[in-house]
Amino acid sequence: MGVVTDAAAADREPKQDRARATRQRILAAAVSCLAERGWSGSTVAVVCARAGVTRGAAQHHFRTREELFTAAIAHMAEEWLAAVRERARALPGSGRDRTHAVVDMLVDVHTGPLFRAALHLWVAATDEPALQPRVAALEARIGREAHRLAVEFLGADESVPGVRETVQGTLDMARGLGLANLLSDDSARRAGIVRQWSRTLDTVLRPPAEGN
Amino acid sequence: MGVVTDAAAADREPKQDRARATRQRILAAAVSCLAERGWSGSTVAVVCARAGVTRGAAQHHFRTREELFTAAIAHMAEEWLAAVRERARALPGSGRDRTHAVVDMLVDVHTGPLFRAALHLWVAATDEPALQPRVAALEARIGREAHRLAVEFLGADESVPGVRETVQGTLDMARGLGLANLLSDDSARRAGIVRQWSRTLDTVLRPPAEGN
Repeated sequence: MGVVTDAAAADREPKQDRARATRQRILAAAVSCLAERGWSGSTVAVVCARAGVTRGAAQHHFRTREELFTAAIAHMAEEWLAAVRERARALPGSGRDRTHAVVDMLVDVHTGPLFRAALHLWVAATDEPALQPRVAALEARIGREAHRLAVEFLGADESVPGVRETVQGTLDMARGLGLANLLSDDSARRAGIVRQWSRTLDTVLRPPAEGN
Repeated sequence: MGVVTDAAAADREPKQDRARATRQRILAAAVSCLAERGWSGSTVAVVCARAGVTRGAAQHHFRTREELFTAAIAHMAEEWLAAVRERARALPGSGRDRTHAVVDMLVDVHTGPLFRAALHLWVAATDEPALQPRVAALEARIGREAHRLAVEFLGADESVPGVRETVQGTLDMARGLGLANLLSDDSARRAGIVRQWSRTLDTVLRPPAEGN
């Protein structure tokens, strides 16, 4: 767009890089802060101190606290989706083992710091009018994308009656397991549920009558 | 315990009644306050104002803010369990219709104000050391009782491999659906998931091969 001299372009490049690096550092600090200290403990000042940036630098990127934290979860969700795509390459090719591996992965991402941070933001949004519409839109977007990925990884045929709802229910179960892991290590109970749920899900996806 | 005169007993009775009524009013105010304003908006002062009692009256019953809110959720959970027992009497007698009615009921109780209040307390407990052990113990107790009721209402035979984990997964899905309903009305999507999962669950509980 427009003509720039080489010198002006060279001058702008590293500036943009620095700005991007600062933005990333603020977003990462916001997510870890939310996960560890909750919404009430996550002020812009706390995030700036954690990221090692000035208040002014943060305000250059994000006008309000709500904008900062919604952007942080959105950014982390993008990174998470990219990581899931990467991890999905190593999944078994087909059948029950693949179904189990996919459910295990979907549940796994709901027990980490990103889910914990997102949960703090979701819950805070219920009584913060400035957060509510932003977070509701973000939740819907992440939910749609998680569903799309689950369908793809499971090789689910949503034209078969009941398959769509079963995949949705699987993601809701994963969210519930994330919640159950909030205050105590629920991993032993969770492993049994994931194993059994995967068997059941596999039967819905590939009914035995069809000889798959 | 011990001998009291009739007059002393008569004097004590209404006093106990009044104390119990005050306690109930404080607990109900604490739950509605948590559901509507979250943990950070739920101070003892706010609850007292809502319940129409003095700060002194509240402190007579509950020494700390943590004690008050944990007691409030525990009390409401008891009331909820009693209501569920009552409601369970009207459930269809057996088969698929009963399974659907039970799942619908289990999911339903995770979308109301009690779940919302409990969720605020759970999430707040992750970064409030004074709350954490109380809430973790309470969550475990409610979880065990909800599981016991689900098994009873579904007529589930937990000696059959996989049945226990499937009932657990159903309750985790119910929690996840509660979460999904936090920021928007998720009832249409939820109805489809409940319908489909009830069919699947029924097959796990009563495999067709056994001709049930």
